[in-house]
Amino acid sequence: MFSVTVRDHMMVAHSFRGEVFGPAQRLHGATFVVDATFRGESLDADGIVVDIAKAAEDLRAVLAELSYRNLDDDPSLAGLNTTTEELARVIADRLADRLGDAGRELDGLVVTLHESHVASASFERAL
Amino acid sequence: MFSVTVRDHMMVAHSFRGEVFGPAQRLHGATFVVDATFRGESLDADGIVVDIAKAAEDLRAVLAELSYRNLDDDPSLAGLNTTTEELARVIADRLADRLGDAGRELDGLVVTLHESHVASASFERAL
Amino acid sequence: MFSVTVRDHMMVAHSFRGEVFGPAQRLHGATFVVDATFRGESLDADGIVVDIAKAAEDLRAVLAELSYRNLDDDPSLAGLNTTTEELARVIADRLADRLGDAGRELDGLVVTLHESHVASASFERAL
Amino acid sequence: MFSVTVRDHMMVAHSFRGEVFGPAQRLHGATFVVDATFRGESLDADGIVVDIAKAAEDLRAVLAELSYRNLDDDPSLAGLNTTTEELARVIADRLADRLGDAGRELDGLVVTLHESHVASASFERAL
Amino acid sequence: MFSVTVRDHMMVAHSFRGEVFGPAQRLHGATFVVDATFRGESLDADGIVVDIAKAAEDLRAVLAELSYRNLDDDPSLAGLNTTTEELARVIADRLADRLGDAGRELDGLVVTLHESHVASASFERAL
Amino acid sequence: MFSVTVRDHMMVAHSFRGEVFGPAQRLHGATFVVDATFRGESLDADGIVVDIAKAAEDLRAVLAELSYRNLDDDPSLAGLNTTTEELARVIADRLADRLGDAGRELDGLVVTLHESHVASASFERAL
Repeated sequence: MFSVTVRDHMMVAHSFRGEVFGPAQRLHGATFVVDATFRGESLDADGIVVDIAKAAEDLRAVLAELSYRNLDDDPSLAGLNTTTEELARVIADRLADRLGDAGRELDGLVVTLHESHVASASFERAL
Repeated sequence: MFSVTVRDHMMVAHSFRGEVFGPAQRLHGATFVVDATFRGESLDADGIVVDIAKAAEDLRAVLAELSYRNLDDDPSLAGLNTTTEELARVIADRLADRLGDAGRELDGLVVTLHESHVASASFERAL
Repeated sequence: MFSVTVRDHMMVAHSFRGEVFGPAQRLHGATFVVDATFRGESLDADGIVVDIAKAAEDLRAVLAELSYRNLDDDPSLAGLNTTTEELARVIADRLADRLGDAGRELDGLVVTLHESHVASASFERAL
Repeated sequence: MFSVTVRDHMMVAHSFRGEVFGPAQRLHGATFVVDATFRGESLDADGIVVDIAKAAEDLRAVLAELSYRNLDDDPSLAGLNTTTEELARVIADRLADRLGDAGRELDGLVVTLHESHVASASFERAL
Repeated sequence: MFSVTVRDHMMVAHSFRGEVFGPAQRLHGATFVVDATFRGESLDADGIVVDIAKAAEDLRAVLAELSYRNLDDDPSLAGLNTTTEELARVIADRLADRLGDAGRELDGLVVTLHESHVASASFERAL
Repeated sequence: MFSVTVRDHMMVAHSFRGEVFGPAQRLHGATFVVDATFRGESLDADGIVVDIAKAAEDLRAVLAELSYRNLDDDPSLAGLNTTTEELARVIADRLADRLGDAGRELDGLVVTLHESHVASASFERAL
């Protein structure tokens, strides 16, 4: 199994609903350093899993829709607690949509969000 | 599949039995930077895999039992070569014990110990 | 010259005033991974620049006043564009205040805020 | 499942064939920071997955065959587009060959090449 | 004293002249992860040392002139042993040229090139 | 001003004398990831501050004298509280001794010991 990973980041404000979140129920924010990993059983004729430049552009485009925003006001996330786990899933799903036909050759996608030097969350899905 | 990872560290002395360890048969020590990853197929009603604050507390509590000690003198590790691999298993098992009921919703646990900038070991187990 | 550095982090929301900030004029947020470096010409009788446990507590206390908050609403920062540079200065000054007598033995203090994997800012001051 | 990871690096020149590579079709180069992960279901009598010193030596020996060279001129890579994915496979296969008997106790091997702070590729194989 | 640091990278081929370089006298290559640090005594009316977006663009533009190339064939580097130290100086000087008027408000510039996880070089100059 | 930095590590046991150290008064241990930075105003005829291969060998040799040992039993450190600060000084002084004539061309040396992902100490000296 092969994989390729590209990294980018986004900077957002948000708040959480639920006592479990303690002080994070207040409006606060985060830098999420995002790793997107594309997995495939085999390489194409060029010897690659994905066009890494295109993968980086796709990740940048997905993060640009969220970055420099208050996620509490984003209609596309309405009703969602925008935890690191949920955001990993949202970003993975949006990346999968952008891959389109290119994704058919791939086996899976993992998105990891690093919220600090001591915490991160991931979501892995098939393609 | 979702996962959440928290990081902490411990500082210990120990020695190894066995010629394969060369100079590490002498009493020496290590900082282990420890990543604990909790895996689950789905998120709970709050949108999380685990309460990340509780996970960090659990990891801290498990490491506090070992840190600032000579592991050669720890009765709970008697007879064990405290290699990075064995310590990863010990920490994973102790974390699983602490999770108790919370662990029943989870699928697995991975503990990775970074012993330097060039070496690490992991243990992965079901919950 | 000796120095000791401790690391912690904070997660905040804020917005900037000024066209130079582009999309960051919108309410957004950041994780700041903060390094505080304490400098001294000589070591004390214990062989240390500062009590590293106390330094870590001081840094944690200073960051706790800011973390999980919208800095736009913090009266202590009123009128300030809370850029990474300005926050580095605010944190350094608050750390210096907390050091009190302990700071008199030191020569200087550097605070560095990492806002992502590709950007950071620092402020250095005498003590 | 246990694993042990060792890290080393190599510095090479190369060029790619194929329009998808854009400016990387020109002769250029890369530092690859290489992580080799050895996986096993159980530990041996010494409490280890592999002799980590031997694993580091094996990795060093494999990388020494490639480092400080122009890969376009390496007969052992003739006809290969030496993408990060392909090099991960080549290094994993050469490591597997070196493991010989030691490898029979292991379940698998993952080789990850970090080509920058924002991109990497991996290859995973059974042993 | 304030500072702001931005990070980017370049991927180049080159070779060295001189016995001290051993195997690096052969054509090989490197990824240089480049940190550019801009230093100033005071902040401007917006509360910043430099426009960080402009600084990142300037760094990207300087690195684009060198990246995906064989530096042995670059006329602008003719006669230069393109060591990590020399490249740090070249990049710092080209960044200083691009800063133009903006640089007059600054005190200095540091450029650090990380050539692997275990080696780097820096050049610091006034502005 | 130019500088070159090389990284290596050592793994040691030790204990501290003094109430300020709390639980670290017990025998424990640490991995120290060590950065040695060599500074010079100008480059030599080869375009380098120091022979980086020789610098890495020197650092390795200095660390080999300390690694895989209990520092409490090292006669060369008798009477010393082997804090991170003191060890940074010891390593810097031993590196300066090894540099010998080569050091005369240099302006200074900085040694930084990272004891975990959240703490480090440095010592800087002239040459």
